[in-house]
Amino acid sequence: MEVPWALPDIGSNELSEVTDCVESTWVTMGPRVSELEEKLADYIDVNHAIAVNSGTAALDVALKSLEIDPQDEVIVPAMTYIATANAVRYQHANPVFADINSTTYTLDPESVRQQLSEDSSAILPIDYGGQCADYEHLQRIAEEEDIALIGDAAESLSASYDGEMAGSLADISVTSFHAAKLMTSVEGGMIFTDDAKLAERCRIIRNQGEHPEKKYHHQELGHNYRLSDLHAAVGLAQFDRLDEIIDQRETIAEFYMEHLQPISDQIVLPTVSPQNEHAWFLFSILSESRDLIRKHLNEHGISTRVTWPLPAHKQPVYSDQHGDETYPISESFANGVLSLPMYHSMNEEEMKYVVERLIEAVDAYVDDKYELE
Amino acid sequence: MEVPWALPDIGSNELSEVTDCVESTWVTMGPRVSELEEKLADYIDVNHAIAVNSGTAALDVALKSLEIDPQDEVIVPAMTYIATANAVRYQHANPVFADINSTTYTLDPESVRQQLSEDSSAILPIDYGGQCADYEHLQRIAEEEDIALIGDAAESLSASYDGEMAGSLADISVTSFHAAKLMTSVEGGMIFTDDAKLAERCRIIRNQGEHPEKKYHHQELGHNYRLSDLHAAVGLAQFDRLDEIIDQRETIAEFYMEHLQPISDQIVLPTVSPQNEHAWFLFSILSESRDLIRKHLNEHGISTRVTWPLPAHKQPVYSDQHGDETYPISESFANGVLSLPMYHSMNEEEMKYVVERLIEAVDAYVDDKYELE
Repeated sequence: MEVPWALPDIGSNELSEVTDCVESTWVTMGPRVSELEEKLADYIDVNHAIAVNSGTAALDVALKSLEIDPQDEVIVPAMTYIATANAVRYQHANPVFADINSTTYTLDPESVRQQLSEDSSAILPIDYGGQCADYEHLQRIAEEEDIALIGDAAESLSASYDGEMAGSLADISVTSFHAAKLMTSVEGGMIFTDDAKLAERCRIIRNQGEHPEKKYHHQELGHNYRLSDLHAAVGLAQFDRLDEIIDQRETIAEFYMEHLQPISDQIVLPTVSPQNEHAWFLFSILSESRDLIRKHLNEHGISTRVTWPLPAHKQPVYSDQHGDETYPISESFANGVLSLPMYHSMNEEEMKYVVERLIEAVDAYVDDKYELE
Repeated sequence: MEVPWALPDIGSNELSEVTDCVESTWVTMGPRVSELEEKLADYIDVNHAIAVNSGTAALDVALKSLEIDPQDEVIVPAMTYIATANAVRYQHANPVFADINSTTYTLDPESVRQQLSEDSSAILPIDYGGQCADYEHLQRIAEEEDIALIGDAAESLSASYDGEMAGSLADISVTSFHAAKLMTSVEGGMIFTDDAKLAERCRIIRNQGEHPEKKYHHQELGHNYRLSDLHAAVGLAQFDRLDEIIDQRETIAEFYMEHLQPISDQIVLPTVSPQNEHAWFLFSILSESRDLIRKHLNEHGISTRVTWPLPAHKQPVYSDQHGDETYPISESFANGVLSLPMYHSMNEEEMKYVVERLIEAVDAYVDDKYELE
């Protein structure tokens, strides 16, 4: 049996949306982009949603809209996808890393406090694997320090924290519609905010910094981050099925959680904090024998992902400047993490197969339960 | 009669390509992206073509691949689309403006020489309106100074200079497939180079700086500039018709040129230099009564564009730092330029209508022929 790690779930509705799009308008930002923005703003319960062509672009626009300047510091988790830190570098500002906590694997507020300096201008947590960061504490720090809180909800669309939707928990937030994400437009991203001024700036920055009413008059350092209607068409069809997609992921996560209980003293299973409704972008386990387990699963046709093998400060692009720093939880997380297959069309036979092969591997290779430190 | 300024020409072939794409693979960079790259590399006659999601992204990647550093200077034309200068700012390097010449409206080599300094690291001409810059002279300067020459062929795909294709005339070149461009993928762009090392770096930078064989290992400051297969599908169908599209533009340009001869002592018509095969992205005229002419045409349903109303150094985003500088040809060009309608489906009746209304306006409003100074 072949079990992929993730599969975009795109079918006939998406085809018909795209066909309509080809047959009607061919514009880079047309009615479908606006419709997608309106639907998502409504879903997340924010005043403004601004579509762009990737989650990375969304981060860049969000930081530019906040006027993050060169030499400013933005605190980001050491355990994150590279784009989080890169977006800070695009401003020629400095990413300052902080550690994650050992339960939800999101930015640890205590570690953030240690990293504050007079150059701190924002805190940028990510919602690892679909579970929101500790926004209550992070918001408090941001308020005390009078700096911005930027939420990276690339992995947590549909998740919630204390009843508030991911993407609505910070001054400005972003998400991603990349093919592997919870909901996809193949490539794409979005910015969310309640602040009308930030939203207006984001729209300008997305479209080459052009004045909204003066063609070819450029008032900001912008970019071409426009989402095409073609991608928005896919996004709209996906959005119609988002609840169903999320339900199915929850079913898979529950199956894994239940059927992996027998080995829960050998591997670390995910923990959902009481404040969180998890979106289950990733189902990540931890084991000291991660590489052997991965190899075993792979030999049986099961794809997995190591998300991520290196903390950001150890990535070649940052290690010259930050490689000597130490973030123990992030580092040991990177050494043990393995994310299991998760996709909409995954059936029970496939789930069972993954569980059986995983238990097999754990029995063969694992002595002690992994401890984050 | 309503005559738009430009219309993307996308029809049933594009629909069928996109449908195939939806029904087969849904990947962000799949077989269609590679095919488009191969076809364009072959067409331009370069060794390497790297597709990205916009022409602006292509510029950013090209500059990053050349390691343009903060404080470096890159010489760009004062009369250009804003993206040219912005791409330099993305590196936190400094755009240094130079004037254009008064015949092809492209970067004036003499003005470039005046702007050279010890911080100069590259020259970045654009092929205004579809006509190549003076590459012979610019290349000579780049060689003498041992700095890079970067060609912006966003407007000149299919043009040639001394028999060499636009996009093959510099160390590294870019083009755009934006909806209004000669050939479109709705949004998209491409980088061309003969240099295998630059090409390899471009591919890495396009994909988040990720090592080509090591998933989630990021070695460069990259970005998500991936072109989706969906857009590449449109590009492929367009490429099949590129010759036909270009022929039709030439027909329109010849019609304008012939039928506007009677008023050629009142308005400035385009000049094609002997070295150039023009791609006719723009058919730009010059007149001191540009705004009145434009208003007249608009009242008769004819859309035009002012490309561009402000030289880059006068744009709000650059005027604080550069607004006091003077580039006389660029400035007077901006005050007089008007680009006439040009699109594939334009028929002779529409061309005649544009010519008649234009002659009407010129007779009513123009006293003296415009002189660039």
